[in-house]
Amino acid sequence: SEVVSSQYGINVFLAGMFLMFAGSLNITGFNKKDIQCYLIVIMLLQLMWMLWYILLTKRGKNSTKEKDSHAGARWLRCGIALFAGISVILDALKLGYYLGYSECLSVPEGVFPVTHAVHTLIQVCFLWFHSKDIIQAFKTIERFGLIHSVFTNLLLWASEVFTESKHQLLEHMDRLITLGFENITLESTIPECNCSTGVCTAFSKAINYLYPFNIEYHILASAMLYVLWKNIGSKMKSHHQKQKCDIRGIASGSASGLVVLSTTIAVTVTYFLLIGRSKFHSELALSIYYLYCTLLLIIMSLTGVVALLIYKTGNRKLTVGKSPAIKLDAELLVGSSCGTWIMSWGSILAIIYADSHPVYTWYNLPCSIMLIIEKYIQNVFVIEFIHCKMEEQIDDDTLTLKSVATIPCESPLFPDPPFELLYSESFTAEKDPFPDVDVCKPSLEEISTVFQNDKNGINENDVINEKSVTDEKNDFTSPTLSEPTSKDIKPKELSKRKRILRNITVFLFLCNISLWIPQAFGCRPQYDNGLEEYVFGFRPWIILIDIALPFSIFYRMHSAYSLFDVYGKI
Amino acid sequence: SEVVSSQYGINVFLAGMFLMFAGSLNITGFNKKDIQCYLIVIMLLQLMWMLWYILLTKRGKNSTKEKDSHAGARWLRCGIALFAGISVILDALKLGYYLGYSECLSVPEGVFPVTHAVHTLIQVCFLWFHSKDIIQAFKTIERFGLIHSVFTNLLLWASEVFTESKHQLLEHMDRLITLGFENITLESTIPECNCSTGVCTAFSKAINYLYPFNIEYHILASAMLYVLWKNIGSKMKSHHQKQKCDIRGIASGSASGLVVLSTTIAVTVTYFLLIGRSKFHSELALSIYYLYCTLLLIIMSLTGVVALLIYKTGNRKLTVGKSPAIKLDAELLVGSSCGTWIMSWGSILAIIYADSHPVYTWYNLPCSIMLIIEKYIQNVFVIEFIHCKMEEQIDDDTLTLKSVATIPCESPLFPDPPFELLYSESFTAEKDPFPDVDVCKPSLEEISTVFQNDKNGINENDVINEKSVTDEKNDFTSPTLSEPTSKDIKPKELSKRKRILRNITVFLFLCNISLWIPQAFGCRPQYDNGLEEYVFGFRPWIILIDIALPFSIFYRMHSAYSLFDVYGKI
Repeated sequence: SEVVSSQYGINVFLAGMFLMFAGSLNITGFNKKDIQCYLIVIMLLQLMWMLWYILLTKRGKNSTKEKDSHAGARWLRCGIALFAGISVILDALKLGYYLGYSECLSVPEGVFPVTHAVHTLIQVCFLWFHSKDIIQAFKTIERFGLIHSVFTNLLLWASEVFTESKHQLLEHMDRLITLGFENITLESTIPECNCSTGVCTAFSKAINYLYPFNIEYHILASAMLYVLWKNIGSKMKSHHQKQKCDIRGIASGSASGLVVLSTTIAVTVTYFLLIGRSKFHSELALSIYYLYCTLLLIIMSLTGVVALLIYKTGNRKLTVGKSPAIKLDAELLVGSSCGTWIMSWGSILAIIYADSHPVYTWYNLPCSIMLIIEKYIQNVFVIEFIHCKMEEQIDDDTLTLKSVATIPCESPLFPDPPFELLYSESFTAEKDPFPDVDVCKPSLEEISTVFQNDKNGINENDVINEKSVTDEKNDFTSPTLSEPTSKDIKPKELSKRKRILRNITVFLFLCNISLWIPQAFGCRPQYDNGLEEYVFGFRPWIILIDIALPFSIFYRMHSAYSLFDVYGKI
Repeated sequence: SEVVSSQYGINVFLAGMFLMFAGSLNITGFNKKDIQCYLIVIMLLQLMWMLWYILLTKRGKNSTKEKDSHAGARWLRCGIALFAGISVILDALKLGYYLGYSECLSVPEGVFPVTHAVHTLIQVCFLWFHSKDIIQAFKTIERFGLIHSVFTNLLLWASEVFTESKHQLLEHMDRLITLGFENITLESTIPECNCSTGVCTAFSKAINYLYPFNIEYHILASAMLYVLWKNIGSKMKSHHQKQKCDIRGIASGSASGLVVLSTTIAVTVTYFLLIGRSKFHSELALSIYYLYCTLLLIIMSLTGVVALLIYKTGNRKLTVGKSPAIKLDAELLVGSSCGTWIMSWGSILAIIYADSHPVYTWYNLPCSIMLIIEKYIQNVFVIEFIHCKMEEQIDDDTLTLKSVATIPCESPLFPDPPFELLYSESFTAEKDPFPDVDVCKPSLEEISTVFQNDKNGINENDVINEKSVTDEKNDFTSPTLSEPTSKDIKPKELSKRKRILRNITVFLFLCNISLWIPQAFGCRPQYDNGLEEYVFGFRPWIILIDIALPFSIFYRMHSAYSLFDVYGKI
């Protein structure tokens, strides 16, 4: 059952983590080979299980008709396929690197990329076709197989994170040596023989740039597998509701988002060019980075507050989501933001307790505080919206009404500008610019306005078109629709509200992507800003950063996914 | 709402944890006072909220009629009251210690125990009277208040754990010095002035023995508060079902459990007498400890397997518990066992990778492996049984049937031995000694046998007595009862099954208590067995132990609670 399999998975994971921990301590009699052997073995085990499952499903013995519509959204599967593709390229580069140094590297070093590539390809196939399955047969075996897969991916993730942070630390040490701290000895990462192909250094550099994608791939895969595991044997009403990706009316949001994105890239490049060249240049780079971050985070927080205010003006009932996919999304968001919060509290305390305060360290204080506040607001925003949709899908009646109700503002029959023009007179009559409408359930009232507008005498042709659409669907809703409600609510206002929310979501989406870039590609002000290291000591702070930073990077990627999801639901 | 308040709580917690982390690093310009001030402030905040809540409830404005019957069981409240009492004694001792050294200790050092004592008293009152509440009014304030309380208790727990492990480390260092490692400098814990009362050393020693109880108190309190927080605004059917504590027929279980308990105490005392005296004595102490643990864990695992086999022979349907109290119990069990698993994997790897293997280190290997297996089995056992009961309480009909059905084996009308004698003839006719009975739902069949036995012609008087009892209750079940079912199942077998399970539970309960004792009172083979320290290095291993051990100690206490719970449900 669930407990038996999860405990097995936890132990597989803990054993692997301990191997890595031992590996990081440079123990005599222990080397990297052992970790790789362990990883290869558990990957092969997972491969066997996946092939067994795929064959079983093909032969129709395990055909599951039930699907969880919340799990494995299409954009998620596309995302994972993209990352998997890059991971396979990474494996090819690693294999090339191994062949170049094949004289002095151990065999597992070469077997690992091959196994990993095969594993990646089959896992993506598996997730692409089966990520929505609700397994009802061979439950015990499938439970063990899935939990094994979840923790295999987590272990691979941990191992990549470990390699990546080791590489970052070496780069940082390198910079420290440039800045004059000469009492640090660098560990050599280059094998002790000559490269036979001549392109090993190029391979090595490329590998470092591709790591962030591989890291994202594994964490995504384990999240999807976890949802599959949670769904085993569950009964679920399947609402096959496709999310349309409507991209009209988000010009301002995407424009400002793209401005942020390009500025961030510019700041990141500047940071990389300046940092480590001299003390002055380093401090300049840090100042620019902190000021820019603070500004951006303030804007993001304000946008989030505006979105929440718009959302709160309507009455909404929160119901807790029942699909594990939605619950996991919320938990991952809050859980991974703990990573940043830890670092931020560290920075704040370091500034409070430091003896001397160079100017640039002061810029760190507002930045850290804003990081805490921004994640707080964004999490609330995303989680409220994820759960809001749930409510509609649980209640079948409101769902049907919704699909009818949203026609006036989404159907191509009513392009927004002329529609707004037509009703502009009645709009000015209303005083309240944002009437008390439920964004979550824009139900009957919206439709009733259409019928009221009919009375006001507008373009007959449009109304007939619309009526034919609504009449087709409202066989059971017609009794309520025929009587106009007392409150007058206008499609334009609803549409406006919706458009603001969509623009905000797009803007936040691009902001999160742009904040992901500097972190994922090795912009580490937490290392370069010497203050925390000075206050807490070099080792404790570096260990802390190495643990917390991967979560912080994952947070940005995951909140971008979640915002994409929210966008589809608005 | 839930997300907003939980994020607030997490940040309060992280800030506090960072203060402690900073405190542990001996940073210049930072001292213990700051942590204590922070703790005093958050305790006062919680006090204010609790008083507000109690007053509100007294004035009847917030009277909640709904109660969660799973939360705050009586034995849990009694347990917490006991631990709280010891905590108050601890505070008194701390205050006495402060008064003795008042010349050279800072003021917060004296304010802290006073605040803590008041906090403890009011919190216990609060939990005693309100731990079953389902709050429906002032939800936002209560949510923040409760989550603040949860994390305040967790922070107090962490701070106690930190103090305790520092003390243990000092003791260990002291032993190392005795054994000849003289390159370690001891930090002095005694303040730099004379004790004015003359009993400071006695106080200091007593404080160290009382810490384990205080630690348990805080973790229990935060678990209860968390359940309260989770229950806010939830709708729940309240089944007021009192758990009877039936203590008949558990002689063998409690006898063997008490034997284990006394042996463990003997082994622990031997350990303390031998360890640190000389190399030979230390190794002897470790060997005795490991061999005894291995033996005990094997017995416990076998008992667990037997219990699971008995349980599995029946058909049972697992439903996931809906009360947050039950879900939390299961999560805490698995979560806290990770602590031991980490240490066990560490020991296993250390033995594999060590260069030299003194004989006593080999005893560590089976002990570590058995620790992993034993927790695995025990968790499965406890969690299956917790959920099993849930099912009965959800289904009202089976519940009523159960209370009727259990009469034959529990009611004083039918003392077991004569009842068995009477039917002994019909029993021998059956071949299967353990028929396929559902332990979870021994429903109609049991009663029908009573009616069948009636036909076989037995002592009329007994049957009349029994009939009068069953007739009183089976107004609605009579149609099913009147027709005998095809399967013959005997009350004696069920009773035997139940008695075995109860004995096993009592035995495991006492075993867990007895395994808690050496850990809680400072028996640390993980420190004293030098192997892991040698392989992983002194600092990494000590940090790991300091993080994992508190969970391991908590696990034993918590599984004892859960087994107590399971016992009531069998």
